[in-house]
Amino acid sequence: MKTLIMFILFFLYMLFCSSIECNNNHIPHPLDPLTPSEFNLIRTIILKSYKTNLTFHYIGLHEPDKHLIKSWLSSNSKTKSLQTPPRQAFIIARFQKQSLEIIVDFSTHSIISTKIYKGQGYPMLTFGEQTIASELIFSYKPFKDSLNKREINISNVLCATFTTGWFGTEERTKGTVKVKCYYNNDDSANLYVRPLEGFAAVVDLDEMKIVSYSDRYVIPVPKAEGTEYRASKMKPPFGPKLKGIGVSQHDGPGFTIEGHSVSWANWVFHVGFDIKAGPIISLASIYDLEKQKYREVLYKGFISEVFVPYQDPTEEWYYTTYFDCGEYGFGQSMSSLQRFTDCPANAVFIDAYYSGSDGVPVKIPNAFCIFEKYAGDIMWRHTEIAIPNEVITEVRSDVSLIVRAVSTVGNYDYVIDWEFKPSGSIKVEVGLTGILGIKAGTYTNTDQIKEDIYGTLLADNTIGVYHDHFFTYYLDLDIDGEANSFVKTNLETVKVKDHKILRKSYWTIVKETAKTEGDARVNIGFKPSELVVVNPNKKTKQGNTIGYRLLPGPILHPLLVNDDYPQIRGAFTNYNVWVTPYNKSEKWAGGLYVDHSRGDDTLAVWSLRDREIENKDIVLWHTMGFHHVPSQEDFPVMPTLSGGFELRPTNFFERNPVLKTKSPKSIHWPNCTSQH
Amino acid sequence: MKTLIMFILFFLYMLFCSSIECNNNHIPHPLDPLTPSEFNLIRTIILKSYKTNLTFHYIGLHEPDKHLIKSWLSSNSKTKSLQTPPRQAFIIARFQKQSLEIIVDFSTHSIISTKIYKGQGYPMLTFGEQTIASELIFSYKPFKDSLNKREINISNVLCATFTTGWFGTEERTKGTVKVKCYYNNDDSANLYVRPLEGFAAVVDLDEMKIVSYSDRYVIPVPKAEGTEYRASKMKPPFGPKLKGIGVSQHDGPGFTIEGHSVSWANWVFHVGFDIKAGPIISLASIYDLEKQKYREVLYKGFISEVFVPYQDPTEEWYYTTYFDCGEYGFGQSMSSLQRFTDCPANAVFIDAYYSGSDGVPVKIPNAFCIFEKYAGDIMWRHTEIAIPNEVITEVRSDVSLIVRAVSTVGNYDYVIDWEFKPSGSIKVEVGLTGILGIKAGTYTNTDQIKEDIYGTLLADNTIGVYHDHFFTYYLDLDIDGEANSFVKTNLETVKVKDHKILRKSYWTIVKETAKTEGDARVNIGFKPSELVVVNPNKKTKQGNTIGYRLLPGPILHPLLVNDDYPQIRGAFTNYNVWVTPYNKSEKWAGGLYVDHSRGDDTLAVWSLRDREIENKDIVLWHTMGFHHVPSQEDFPVMPTLSGGFELRPTNFFERNPVLKTKSPKSIHWPNCTSQH
Repeated sequence: MKTLIMFILFFLYMLFCSSIECNNNHIPHPLDPLTPSEFNLIRTIILKSYKTNLTFHYIGLHEPDKHLIKSWLSSNSKTKSLQTPPRQAFIIARFQKQSLEIIVDFSTHSIISTKIYKGQGYPMLTFGEQTIASELIFSYKPFKDSLNKREINISNVLCATFTTGWFGTEERTKGTVKVKCYYNNDDSANLYVRPLEGFAAVVDLDEMKIVSYSDRYVIPVPKAEGTEYRASKMKPPFGPKLKGIGVSQHDGPGFTIEGHSVSWANWVFHVGFDIKAGPIISLASIYDLEKQKYREVLYKGFISEVFVPYQDPTEEWYYTTYFDCGEYGFGQSMSSLQRFTDCPANAVFIDAYYSGSDGVPVKIPNAFCIFEKYAGDIMWRHTEIAIPNEVITEVRSDVSLIVRAVSTVGNYDYVIDWEFKPSGSIKVEVGLTGILGIKAGTYTNTDQIKEDIYGTLLADNTIGVYHDHFFTYYLDLDIDGEANSFVKTNLETVKVKDHKILRKSYWTIVKETAKTEGDARVNIGFKPSELVVVNPNKKTKQGNTIGYRLLPGPILHPLLVNDDYPQIRGAFTNYNVWVTPYNKSEKWAGGLYVDHSRGDDTLAVWSLRDREIENKDIVLWHTMGFHHVPSQEDFPVMPTLSGGFELRPTNFFERNPVLKTKSPKSIHWPNCTSQH
Repeated sequence: MKTLIMFILFFLYMLFCSSIECNNNHIPHPLDPLTPSEFNLIRTIILKSYKTNLTFHYIGLHEPDKHLIKSWLSSNSKTKSLQTPPRQAFIIARFQKQSLEIIVDFSTHSIISTKIYKGQGYPMLTFGEQTIASELIFSYKPFKDSLNKREINISNVLCATFTTGWFGTEERTKGTVKVKCYYNNDDSANLYVRPLEGFAAVVDLDEMKIVSYSDRYVIPVPKAEGTEYRASKMKPPFGPKLKGIGVSQHDGPGFTIEGHSVSWANWVFHVGFDIKAGPIISLASIYDLEKQKYREVLYKGFISEVFVPYQDPTEEWYYTTYFDCGEYGFGQSMSSLQRFTDCPANAVFIDAYYSGSDGVPVKIPNAFCIFEKYAGDIMWRHTEIAIPNEVITEVRSDVSLIVRAVSTVGNYDYVIDWEFKPSGSIKVEVGLTGILGIKAGTYTNTDQIKEDIYGTLLADNTIGVYHDHFFTYYLDLDIDGEANSFVKTNLETVKVKDHKILRKSYWTIVKETAKTEGDARVNIGFKPSELVVVNPNKKTKQGNTIGYRLLPGPILHPLLVNDDYPQIRGAFTNYNVWVTPYNKSEKWAGGLYVDHSRGDDTLAVWSLRDREIENKDIVLWHTMGFHHVPSQEDFPVMPTLSGGFELRPTNFFERNPVLKTKSPKSIHWPNCTSQH
């Protein structure tokens, strides 16, 4: 009888659910990003109180407390929907020249908290206000005069807004942006390499009016020739030629996606989205074949801030010190990914939604792609020839799972990859491509240059300005549980005193557990050290402390002096590694209000409290990046420059966790019917 | 009439040549590795003079002078075979306890030079003498006593030879190796994790007899359980499971191989082989679409030495400081690669040949594989949303060409990749996998350890000894010609003095051209600097000096004191970068006779001459690697740990060289007939 009922239920399920629909009908995950209907609900609820004269600068999930998430996660599937933590949103809006922080609760359909922010700094710019501010200038007389003076047709001009930071003024900073313009015509879509240098407007975003304007000098506009990057607009010869290549998965993809939850090989994790951070990886756990259970690795990881200071101190450029997350929004800047080029044929795509400045949801189609990467790498191998009469060769080929997003902040495109490996490693990579920040100049050859031009002459009248890219990652590792410690395993030379020993020296390890935040600030590269997050309460059978170590990414140290204003605001880059105790409110390394910030709400300031971090729920912050001296190859569009770090299990498993994995079937497909 | 003759010639060509045969009948390249018939010829010629009591330690191509190679290369195909430089071999052999250096000329079938080497040190070990030395011990009474004392059946013992370096003795060092043994039975093929610790023999290789023996202590043999790595010998459960995945190339591979010359996309290069170095990449040139010609990048690149000092100073381990090229031969240690696992389905394989100690050629089938890598990476991209009413997205997906070899030196497997990218980059990567160097110990849990055990307790009685891997690459860059300079582009902070400027600081570049070798020694990580090899005689149209820069690999600095004997021998690792003037005889960073060497023929010594290197044919030497603190995950076989460096064009091209490339067709193949 029971069987019959089961069968009928299954039959009804099959009847009403296509697999896709039923995947959409999964139990909502408490970390799922806000949905279009939730954005609409927020808008309705808030506009009821504030009418229309309010702009939304940030709307994101107001995350439930960690213990609620974890108890929801461990609850069984029947009671899961009952145990779902209350779902809420956190909103920053501008209203009557004030920043409001509002929490909306979805179950009660109400505002449950409102706070007026009194500190310095402004929330993330919205696309809405940027568009209006850029358009203002077109009806501004002095701007028209500037164009006339240069004999430029106004229809060939496009303008954009630029954050201007803070440079030591005592009085309250107004919420202003600079508006600078580019030449645009059919000759080239590459407007960023054709700046109209010498004039700029300052717009007050609250007043939405031009508050100052300067036209300091006239300089040639770099020419269009050689700047186009659209294949459809280029003339032959094309090349180098690359033959067709693709990935085949005869048995379909190895991963499953339910909503935003991904399961692949020995990994499970959740892919979230935030308008400011972009991709958020949460609750990454790995299945331990020996212990026969999933074990926690990463509670949450995301790019907390991207600091891009340019190195030209002159009037037109000195303020160009972007904070791409806090000022421009790495999430709202995400581009729709293209199948076959941004992601291979075997990718699956996920959309993202954010709120426009009017609160209306905006869709980014194909914002994420998820695919299995098969690059021909070797997972592990050994050839043994020492055993008589046999040659043993055992090789496992490697496959990994990539979660990709691309954030295009104006000119630059950042490829953001999270890679999960069956061996337990999480590799995190950023690729830099897109278009350089270009300054117009009078020079056409380096012979003419007698002074510092703060950049590389890339083409006639075209200077690629020196700059840095600092990527600061938030990594809330929960290594096999929440209570973790940060250990520096220092490699130290020992000089041999014993004359019976023929070596004069060797190295050994000296472990140093960080007691407080001050102990955990590390500048990488000066001292050989393995940086490990351990669970001091858990040991392997052999007695080694369970951990994951950081193999750092490309390391850079700030070159600005510490008391320079951009560096005060970007002080979270002063160390490559920081560790803080978990604090729900400490998410943004550059602060919550980064535009015009004064550096009083950064990781560097929080860390000064020197809190205890031993055997606690801790967060690891890692900054990697590049100093960028542009070269002619980076023009007119940059070949990708990549770098990344690895989180690698270190005595987390009792042994190699892929010892008993088998290579995926790698099949040669000579006879295929293609399908584009 | 002319057309008719051409047609007849073409017809005859098609008649007599299958494409494969004619590929094999290509004009021999002067850098092609020695062929089996050449090895046989060498053997015949030399044994005529020296009879059989001579052992061959090194036989390699005696390379023609660079100018001969280059004029051959630039000669047209008709006269090419006439201009082939004289083909010769360089041989190091042991004869009557002396090292002979012999040059054989193939055209005259004669020895054209013989030299007796009088210095310290011994040539590379041969497999032949290692086998005999390891077997000697089995008929040695004290060894049998050692086994009896331990109740070990002699049939379960396998022994291997270990180089022992030099530790300060004044008198002439004898050509000895240590013989140490491992337990081997059907329970596990993993002999290296089951050392028979406490006893060892010393064998004089010239005398081929045991000259000393010690049995110092008895210690348990680590157990077999959990050490097996052959899937066929393991019991379920297997996992994690990976679904089948493969690469499809509907139109076939994009590269062509003629003999050892490879042509792909915009690259041409030659893949050579040497018994000591392994893979040798030569004459890598890139096609410049604008200049419509191939331009030189890398005259020659190979791994010159691999230094692996272990960090256990005790009697049984202090001497364990391997030089994997100079002592063991990275080339003769190359393993046959397996299709589908070592290399993907779309790989093409090349065999290699070396000479055994008797002079008879030995084949390594499938020693190299060459394949197009399609990892889902983005070559470059940009999304433009600033232009009204259109969204532009241009993306090019990346494909690169990999040349791979694996060198298995006893327990360790090194995956050696050379990657060519259409954007002009050459990426060089090493992957470390295989089996750790294991020491037996009495411990089963870290709780019991009260002293330094110089390693990590990985399993019961199993210690993974701390060690380093230093990879020193020889990179004879000829950037658009031979005369090159080495420039450090230093990034330096400028403090702003002008109070009208609101920034307090910025960075700029200060270029420093190395005049002599002393100026070019660099320890990376302490100072931000781009390291560039330029052609000071060539500039771009814009006036920038043409160059390639080194994006360094994982950086490590020696932790042994400078006057420690292994570090004197490995002094070429004292800097991460050295530059020397090209000198045909300076190929081996650790010297030509590395076994028992005293450090008098290393890169560090040559560099002391402080020769001029500005605007000269120069060689860049780069050392990267890893300090290795083993973790339990590395046991019983290591998941690959990878790292590499990049040679990237820097003002070599006038603009992005892949601006006008099109993405390879990436096709989804749902309907395929498979073929294993």
